[in-house]
Amino acid sequence: MPIITLLTDFGLEDEYVGVMKGVILSIAPQARLVDLTHLIPPQDICRGALVLVSAAPYFPPDTVHLAVVDPGVGTARRPVAIRTPIGTFVGPDNGLFSWALTEVEEWQAVELRETAYRLPQVSMTFHGRDIFAPAAAHLATGVPLEALGPSVFDLVSLPLPYLEIRENTVEGEILYADRFGNLVTSIGRLRWTGDLLTLIPAFRPHAGPAAMFPAGLVRVTVGKTEVRPIRRTYGEAARGELVALVGSSGFLEIAVREGNAAERLGLLPGTPVQITW
Amino acid sequence: MPIITLLTDFGLEDEYVGVMKGVILSIAPQARLVDLTHLIPPQDICRGALVLVSAAPYFPPDTVHLAVVDPGVGTARRPVAIRTPIGTFVGPDNGLFSWALTEVEEWQAVELRETAYRLPQVSMTFHGRDIFAPAAAHLATGVPLEALGPSVFDLVSLPLPYLEIRENTVEGEILYADRFGNLVTSIGRLRWTGDLLTLIPAFRPHAGPAAMFPAGLVRVTVGKTEVRPIRRTYGEAARGELVALVGSSGFLEIAVREGNAAERLGLLPGTPVQITW
Amino acid sequence: MPIITLLTDFGLEDEYVGVMKGVILSIAPQARLVDLTHLIPPQDICRGALVLVSAAPYFPPDTVHLAVVDPGVGTARRPVAIRTPIGTFVGPDNGLFSWALTEVEEWQAVELRETAYRLPQVSMTFHGRDIFAPAAAHLATGVPLEALGPSVFDLVSLPLPYLEIRENTVEGEILYADRFGNLVTSIGRLRWTGDLLTLIPAFRPHAGPAAMFPAGLVRVTVGKTEVRPIRRTYGEAARGELVALVGSSGFLEIAVREGNAAERLGLLPGTPVQITW
Repeated sequence: MPIITLLTDFGLEDEYVGVMKGVILSIAPQARLVDLTHLIPPQDICRGALVLVSAAPYFPPDTVHLAVVDPGVGTARRPVAIRTPIGTFVGPDNGLFSWALTEVEEWQAVELRETAYRLPQVSMTFHGRDIFAPAAAHLATGVPLEALGPSVFDLVSLPLPYLEIRENTVEGEILYADRFGNLVTSIGRLRWTGDLLTLIPAFRPHAGPAAMFPAGLVRVTVGKTEVRPIRRTYGEAARGELVALVGSSGFLEIAVREGNAAERLGLLPGTPVQITW
Repeated sequence: MPIITLLTDFGLEDEYVGVMKGVILSIAPQARLVDLTHLIPPQDICRGALVLVSAAPYFPPDTVHLAVVDPGVGTARRPVAIRTPIGTFVGPDNGLFSWALTEVEEWQAVELRETAYRLPQVSMTFHGRDIFAPAAAHLATGVPLEALGPSVFDLVSLPLPYLEIRENTVEGEILYADRFGNLVTSIGRLRWTGDLLTLIPAFRPHAGPAAMFPAGLVRVTVGKTEVRPIRRTYGEAARGELVALVGSSGFLEIAVREGNAAERLGLLPGTPVQITW
Repeated sequence: MPIITLLTDFGLEDEYVGVMKGVILSIAPQARLVDLTHLIPPQDICRGALVLVSAAPYFPPDTVHLAVVDPGVGTARRPVAIRTPIGTFVGPDNGLFSWALTEVEEWQAVELRETAYRLPQVSMTFHGRDIFAPAAAHLATGVPLEALGPSVFDLVSLPLPYLEIRENTVEGEILYADRFGNLVTSIGRLRWTGDLLTLIPAFRPHAGPAAMFPAGLVRVTVGKTEVRPIRRTYGEAARGELVALVGSSGFLEIAVREGNAAERLGLLPGTPVQITW
């Protein structure tokens, strides 16, 4: 029985996540449930899209990723399921899956219209319970994607995170601060080759290497603050030192060793970040 | 092997929830564990009772619902297990299960006195670990309810949430704000029939329809604020507009489309809410 | 298939925990995953060590406890796995497991050097994903400890929490406040014998009883506040009363019945606590 992961902005204090799990296990009693996170900031589709694209590749390809960040619940936005080589995604068609789809060569999508695979009563405020959880559960039990509804070819896409590559400069922006206060930026993905960093723009299918520069000789600027060259590890910085490094998903991060860069710098998502060499 | 759900006010930062799961899995290694929530506000029995009554019906009927919101731990309050058609409940006899019990025709309860189904040492401060987790685990492995202790017939009941129905007016109160800042009220349960809403008072067994009114023509007042008529979906409101709608459990909710009503209105639990027509 | 528990300071809003679970389930699809907590304060190794020592004994002895509180990721600190009679621990060699090890007679440890049991690419910032999760998963599938790398005999130890025993006085300190605002102290472990309390110093292997005193006749001082004698249960105190009692892991706790002692007293970790008789 495949894994079903859950990602929502429902939080952990209310019954919403538990109710979805009850619905899933009533249909697919053997399903393995894994929470990705339920603390996506309310209605922040971009943050949900980022978590999905970072987490999905680490799960087996038959995993069903159920994701509900759904400000348009009850409007005309379509409920969809999308099969890809890195997993099957179930949720609202509002762009939540569009960055993950840039990572794959091909996908098939359907609109979740077949009432046999919904709860008998569909509310207008909680499609996570009434449409998405049943669809994910039925897919996990082996119901073919095509049985859930008609094909969809024009999925909604999110705009890509800001990234501009010029001669001797790459500019991006702060996307968010993680739990450690590390500022995750849109500059990625970065790969080490010896002392050089290669930039292959994320979420741009078929993009090749777009820049290459010597990590130890660049200048990194975030807002009005200059950060020392890009380090390989926290251990190369002193305690409390501001440091730029390549985060676990290949994006440039601004951190403070054993400290909190978001608190130190007070910078908000959208603040520009530059690498110059 | 049945599901065991867990609901507590233990939070997620300490070892308490993990310890209960270790105890359960040592007794019932095949049990499926599902967290309902561990973020019930400390000792808020009413909030726990609301989550249980909203979530339990979505689980298979052989599920064991282990719930610990237990300000009276170590006093004379009884530890109990209660078998019902919507699941078996295990926890303190302090009213936590009383609203769920109003939803069922019959139940059998026992006091958890049998020492063979407790941990060898029972502390005076952590019955979740020493009494409730072992009882839930043994029930999940098939131990009959009757083996756990003597029958109990006089379970403690919580007072019902405030709801008063007059000619052309229904009055209730704000119960709590959920993660989205939606204000969940005691006015419910509401059911749509065409453009009419029918009110069948929640938690009053055998109550029939007590009021019926045209959703689009009513006036909703929360504290001193008037809200437009009751909508079917967020999509019928403009972004940032205050809106009254029927929430996922059938209770009237006051929300702000893509916003936070609790922050906007600054209202506390207990604030009166009226529907007038 | 054994249980794998997870303890980290990764928080619940980012993808880090989900990614580790994806890695584990890709290697050990049948593993049972149990979260101990992911809300260890960032880089607080001592708090992680306390949760581990309190929770591990309640799990079956073949459990693998994967724990990542790892300020030294990317430095020379070793990744290790340690087999003990109360479970196998996997994580950084920075003292995180040292208090749990004081509870056992013997252990075997290895450094996680064998590349066959790591992810193919090992980053310098996320060993939880690249080294620890794969090691825990392989151990759960039955790979012998010795296969993961060379033996280690000189594991790093944390200093022990402060505890000083004098004639007629025991002095310790506040370790942390739990979710209820109960102040957990380093004075433990305490065991009841009738009306007497016996103190067997925690984390000191082979320590025998070091003090014995009449619980009802002692004076407890925390900071500059005097607390009434040590109670058996919250029920012996009035609502809102400050109370000293023996917590669920055997450590002295300062609490307020149905209230929050940390808020009431405003005391920080490190504040001295005394029992005098």
